[in-house]
Amino acid sequence: MKLEGKVVVAQGGGPTAVINQSLVGVVLESRKFPQITKVYGALGGVSGILHEDFLDLTQETTHNLERVAVTPSSALFSTRDKPDEAYCQEIFKVFKAHDVRYFFYIGGNDSADTVRIVNEEAERSNYEFRAIHIPKTIDNDLMVNDHTPGYGSAARFVAQSFIGLNLDNRALPGVHVGVVMGRHSGFLTAASSIAQKYPDDGPHLIYLPERAFKTEDFLRDVKRVYDQHGRCVIAVSEGIQDEFGVPIMAKLGAREKDSHGNVSLSGTGALGDLLTQYIKEQLKISRVRSDTFGYLQRSFLGCVSDVDQREAREVGEKAAQYAIWHNIDGSITIHRTGFYSVDYQLTNLKEVAAKTKHMPDEFINAQGNNVTEAFKYYLTPLLGSNMPSASMLRAPKAEKILHRD
Amino acid sequence: MKLEGKVVVAQGGGPTAVINQSLVGVVLESRKFPQITKVYGALGGVSGILHEDFLDLTQETTHNLERVAVTPSSALFSTRDKPDEAYCQEIFKVFKAHDVRYFFYIGGNDSADTVRIVNEEAERSNYEFRAIHIPKTIDNDLMVNDHTPGYGSAARFVAQSFIGLNLDNRALPGVHVGVVMGRHSGFLTAASSIAQKYPDDGPHLIYLPERAFKTEDFLRDVKRVYDQHGRCVIAVSEGIQDEFGVPIMAKLGAREKDSHGNVSLSGTGALGDLLTQYIKEQLKISRVRSDTFGYLQRSFLGCVSDVDQREAREVGEKAAQYAIWHNIDGSITIHRTGFYSVDYQLTNLKEVAAKTKHMPDEFINAQGNNVTEAFKYYLTPLLGSNMPSASMLRAPKAEKILHRD
Repeated sequence: MKLEGKVVVAQGGGPTAVINQSLVGVVLESRKFPQITKVYGALGGVSGILHEDFLDLTQETTHNLERVAVTPSSALFSTRDKPDEAYCQEIFKVFKAHDVRYFFYIGGNDSADTVRIVNEEAERSNYEFRAIHIPKTIDNDLMVNDHTPGYGSAARFVAQSFIGLNLDNRALPGVHVGVVMGRHSGFLTAASSIAQKYPDDGPHLIYLPERAFKTEDFLRDVKRVYDQHGRCVIAVSEGIQDEFGVPIMAKLGAREKDSHGNVSLSGTGALGDLLTQYIKEQLKISRVRSDTFGYLQRSFLGCVSDVDQREAREVGEKAAQYAIWHNIDGSITIHRTGFYSVDYQLTNLKEVAAKTKHMPDEFINAQGNNVTEAFKYYLTPLLGSNMPSASMLRAPKAEKILHRD
Repeated sequence: MKLEGKVVVAQGGGPTAVINQSLVGVVLESRKFPQITKVYGALGGVSGILHEDFLDLTQETTHNLERVAVTPSSALFSTRDKPDEAYCQEIFKVFKAHDVRYFFYIGGNDSADTVRIVNEEAERSNYEFRAIHIPKTIDNDLMVNDHTPGYGSAARFVAQSFIGLNLDNRALPGVHVGVVMGRHSGFLTAASSIAQKYPDDGPHLIYLPERAFKTEDFLRDVKRVYDQHGRCVIAVSEGIQDEFGVPIMAKLGAREKDSHGNVSLSGTGALGDLLTQYIKEQLKISRVRSDTFGYLQRSFLGCVSDVDQREAREVGEKAAQYAIWHNIDGSITIHRTGFYSVDYQLTNLKEVAAKTKHMPDEFINAQGNNVTEAFKYYLTPLLGSNMPSASMLRAPKAEKILHRD
C-alpha cells in the first residue's frame, strides 16, 4: 500500500526568517522513508516545477541543511506565479515524467490555493498523488491557524524596532511614524505594542487595515498625544484603507501590481512621507520623521523567535508524516492548546486557500488606534525566549539652585 | 591635591546602541572616589545643564544601571544644541552653583567641540575644572580614533540587514536599493559588504559620500550587474554627493536644517525612491525596490557587538580615571594595537572637535562603487562575537526529462 515515488518541495510568496526550517523539516523527514526514491527541491516555486529546475536534496548534507534552516529567506527561491489550469497541466506532465508522488508547497493563502488547484487536477487525472500546503506568512493572515510560522520572528523584529524607535524618540523628541508590512491584516503592525513597557512608552498610536483610516481622526490623535507627552510614536500598517476600502497607498498613485492583481505596497517610503507631510503641515510640528521597515522585517538575519523556528520545523515534518504515513492531503494548521502549547492538524485546503484572516475585534481598542491587552497576551509567547526589553533610569531629580520656583 | 566636587555626565547628538555603556562606565567609576560628592546626569545634554535638569545618579541602583547599559539610545536623552559663548557662561553659573568640578560629555565631533568651548571658558574663568569628551558615533567619523563606540553595533545591524536583503533579492529577483546613514563618511554603508559571502552575493554595488555620485555611472553599473546576475543589490549612503559636493538629497528639495546648519537627511524615503525611479525609467526594469534603514540602524534593541559594548564601557571608565586620577582634560580616543586589541589615550580636544574622518582610499575600490578586502579586514573584529552568516543549498541539479537540451 506504500506509495512509491519522488517528493517535490517548493517555497512560494514572500520569504520569512524561518521558511527554511519548514523546508528542512520536509527534507529530513521525507529522506527517512524507503518508498521515497528522491527528494527534489523546485527552484523558484511552481515556476521551477514547470521548467524542471530541481535540486536533488537527497544529495544535500544534513549539516548544510541545518545551516540553511537558520538562514532567512527562501533557499529554493520563490515566485509570484499563480497557476491556472493550463499551468497545472504542464506541472502534471513534469510530475508524471519524474514519478513525483508527493508535493509540499510552503507558502501563504495564495500558495494554499495553488496546492488546491494542483490537487484537484491530480484527482481529475486519476494520478495517485499527495499534495500538502505548509503554512508560512509574516502577515499571520491564514484562516483556521491560531498563528503562522514566520509571524513570530517578524513580530519580534517589529517589537525590537519599536522599542528602539521609542527610546530614540524620547532622547530627541518629535513625531515618528513607523510603517510596517501587512496588506489586509494588522497583526504584524500590532506587534509594535510590545514596546509599551513604561506608562509613557510608544507606540502611542497604532493604525491597522482592519479599521478605516480617517485623516482628521489621525491628526486629532497625534495632536492629543503630542500635547500630552511632547512627542509621539506611531505604528502604521502599509495596508491602511479609507472607509471605502481604498488603500491610502493607492491614493498616492501606487499603480504597480503583482500577478495576483495586488497593488505593490512595499519597497517605497511614500506612505510614511505622506503621513509626515500631513503632520508637519496641519499640526505645525517641525521634527517629524518616518521609517518604512520594508524588506528588513521579513529577511533580517539574527532576529528570530525560537518558538517560531521550532513550529516552522514541525509543520514541515508533520506535512511529510501526514502525506507519507497517512496518505492524505490538506493544509497543516496550528492550533493553540494552552499557554503556551500547540497541536498541528490537517485541514481541508478550501478552508485556508485564498482567504484572509483579520485581527479579531477583541484585539483592537474601541477608538481603533491601539491594541488591547488581549492581543499582547496572544502575542507574547510567539516572540520566543529571551525577548529583550528596555530599562530607564529611575534616579531622583536633583534640587535646582539657580532656577528654584 | 584631590579636587573635590560633583560630576556631571551628559549625552549629545544621535543615540547609539551602546551609548549607555559609556554613561554607566562614567557613573560606576566616579562613584568609587571619595572626593566625588555627587554624580549628576544632565537630562537632554547641555540643555539639561542650562536648566539644572539633573538626575542624582549617586542614588541609582547598580543593578538598574547595568540594565540601562544594555538599553540602546540615550538614557539621559539628547540635544542638538550647540553652545556659543553666552550659552557656556550660563552653563558655568550652573556648574559653580552646584560645585561641579568634572564634566563628561558623550557624543560625536560636535559634542567634542562643545567640550572644547566649555573647557576654554573654564580656563578663562580660572575655575578648577576637568572636562572630557567621550566618543560615540555610528558614523565612525571621529579623527584620531581607529573607530568609535556605536559604530560596531550599527555596522553589525547594517551587515545583518544586507545579508537578509541579498537573500530576499535572490528569492524574488529585481533591483534593491538600501539607503544607510552617514552624512560625510561611508563607513556605515561600507559595512554592507560583509554580506558578500558567496561569489554572486550582494551588495553588488556600494556608493559612499567619499566618491562623487554620477547618475550615468550609477545606471551603467546597475545595468551591468543586472545583465550578469538577473538581479542587483545596492548599498547607498544617505550622504552621497555630486562632483560639486552637493548632497543628492539636497537636490530633492530637502530643506529642513538642524541647529548645526546640516540638511536633514534621515526620516524620509525620498532618496531611495528617487534612485528606484531612475532605474525603472532609464533601465526599464520593473521590480525595483528601496529600503531606507532610518532610525532602526542606530536604536534597534537586540543587535549589538560585544566588542563595541566593552569598548563603550571602557571609554566611560577611562574618562573618569583620566579626570579624577590624572587631573587632565581631553578626548578619549581608541587606538588599534593588534588583531584584535586596542589602547585608549587622551587626545587634545582640538584634534577631534568639529572635524570629520573619511574612509581612507585603501578601503574604496578603484571604480568607487565597492569596498576593498582591506576594509573588511578592518571591520570584521568590530562586529563582535557570533556574527551570523547565511548558507545556501549546494545540492546538485537533477536531470531534466521533458526539457532536455
